[in-house]
Amino acid sequence: MKSGGNTAEKKVVALCGGVGGAKLAWGLAQVLSPEQLTLIVNTGDDFSHLGFGKTGLHISPDLDTVMYTLANRNNRELGWGLQGETWQCMNALENFGGDTWFRLGDKDLATHFFRTQQLAQGKTLTQVTAELCTALNIAHRILPMCNEPLPTLVDTEKGTLAFQHYFVREQCKPVVRGVQHLGAENSTLSHEVRAALQDEALTHIIICPSNPLLSIAPILTVSGLRELLQTLRKKIIVVSPLIGGQAVKGPTAKMLRELNIATHTASIAHFYQDLLGTLLIDDSDAHEADTLQQYNIRVQTSKTLMQTDADKIALARAIIYPL
Amino acid sequence: MKSGGNTAEKKVVALCGGVGGAKLAWGLAQVLSPEQLTLIVNTGDDFSHLGFGKTGLHISPDLDTVMYTLANRNNRELGWGLQGETWQCMNALENFGGDTWFRLGDKDLATHFFRTQQLAQGKTLTQVTAELCTALNIAHRILPMCNEPLPTLVDTEKGTLAFQHYFVREQCKPVVRGVQHLGAENSTLSHEVRAALQDEALTHIIICPSNPLLSIAPILTVSGLRELLQTLRKKIIVVSPLIGGQAVKGPTAKMLRELNIATHTASIAHFYQDLLGTLLIDDSDAHEADTLQQYNIRVQTSKTLMQTDADKIALARAIIYPL
Repeated sequence: MKSGGNTAEKKVVALCGGVGGAKLAWGLAQVLSPEQLTLIVNTGDDFSHLGFGKTGLHISPDLDTVMYTLANRNNRELGWGLQGETWQCMNALENFGGDTWFRLGDKDLATHFFRTQQLAQGKTLTQVTAELCTALNIAHRILPMCNEPLPTLVDTEKGTLAFQHYFVREQCKPVVRGVQHLGAENSTLSHEVRAALQDEALTHIIICPSNPLLSIAPILTVSGLRELLQTLRKKIIVVSPLIGGQAVKGPTAKMLRELNIATHTASIAHFYQDLLGTLLIDDSDAHEADTLQQYNIRVQTSKTLMQTDADKIALARAIIYPL
Repeated sequence: MKSGGNTAEKKVVALCGGVGGAKLAWGLAQVLSPEQLTLIVNTGDDFSHLGFGKTGLHISPDLDTVMYTLANRNNRELGWGLQGETWQCMNALENFGGDTWFRLGDKDLATHFFRTQQLAQGKTLTQVTAELCTALNIAHRILPMCNEPLPTLVDTEKGTLAFQHYFVREQCKPVVRGVQHLGAENSTLSHEVRAALQDEALTHIIICPSNPLLSIAPILTVSGLRELLQTLRKKIIVVSPLIGGQAVKGPTAKMLRELNIATHTASIAHFYQDLLGTLLIDDSDAHEADTLQQYNIRVQTSKTLMQTDADKIALARAIIYPL
């Protein structure tokens, strides 16, 4: 799967959230060596589940999606979780009338047990993620955006919902009024995230085509991260998550409309205006390039839809080696 | 499986611990209707596992063994857990280097998740056990000995061990110096246990052939329980866990030797001397009956080894209808 080509002089950090981010992360991992690529992953959707007193299983859905995808163990049929997964525990729990709206596969449970127990023993999320990656034979570095909790809350017509309650339990149906990030003031830039971004050899900072409001915004709220990125904007490439005014998957377009934000690439440029850099838009949106001139950014076009593994690698290469 | 015979006038409470207790409990449940039989089960071996902060999964091994056995869903090959069990979670956790000395099957995990979450929501262990029994189609009443934690600790040559650490992790190998029950002063007789024992229609209180020190002693330390039983000693029948100086299973005989207690039925009579009643000993120990005279108790003999379902039913009938 490794592509050829002289990529040795490239050094890349990619910020990613859910499925779209994981796809590009996978493509990048095929093009770049472990020394060349670091992934910083959203943990704003982390939550405590099957609550035991104050705490429960510590679930990090985006971290897991990126890990399982890079390990080539992601469940492609479901679009989440592990391949070859079984559901004995959930089925039995359903029989008891327990909480089963968030489907935890039998194999997947082990990830949450291990993470939760290691965190309880005082390790950081960064340390535990590294241990999980080692066990899953993932060579590329995956970093949580921070070690502190920084949960995303979604203000909706049905009230303020914890992210997974909005995203999974309510299936993104409630109309969104706004998004909150709780605890940013207590978050800190981890040593590992800071070192990755301050590496002078860094050539690219890629913001993956993940939901800007739900997957990338939480990362940008980590104390000090946005300010650091602002000093590095020449290196930043945002891959637009919109194609022809639609998101490939998930609620991005629906949310933008609910927040009265136009679903075209200029909204993406506007959202990231203090960070860009280069905005990479889909070939089919090339006609919007004129509307982007006001942002004083570089605009690049490529095929951004990632349906096949070849698509993911091609997009990764298009970013690293623009025509 | 229901045996015939006029048992309508019988009303029975059985105190039981692990596997031996569950076998007799199953036999009794075939002979007696749900209205006639209540099981009071040891929870001294309950523990918190895969610790999340201060709490973890609330595991009640003896309750589960009795529940799964009465539901005809126990794993007969293993002697514990559920039949048709799978181990996807444990295998994945093992790959991470997680805690796997206590094997939790995928289906079994649901029991612990449900119990833990319901307890966290403020229900009592008695309530949660009733809900689990309903979901498992168990008609007979299964009561935990109390709702408060009352953990059994085993003092050994290797230090004081939590019960499951001694029993499962260390496989009962360390030499035992003594047994402690922590928190008896904070335990209370639950309304349900008290009502079952104070029922004037009660004809039999059976102490199952479980390990006296590890499975029955914790029950007897529940605040007020021993005193209540002392007023009911005429109804009490202890089934000796020893056959020819050996325990059928588990560490009973080994522990007695380590504590310098002779492994004969007189030691059982001595242990329960303030509660007996009737001591039912195995046919093969009939020659020891003379040594039991000093305890001023009734002695009954029967085949007590329960290898087949027929054995379990026969022993239950021998207790309820002595010759």
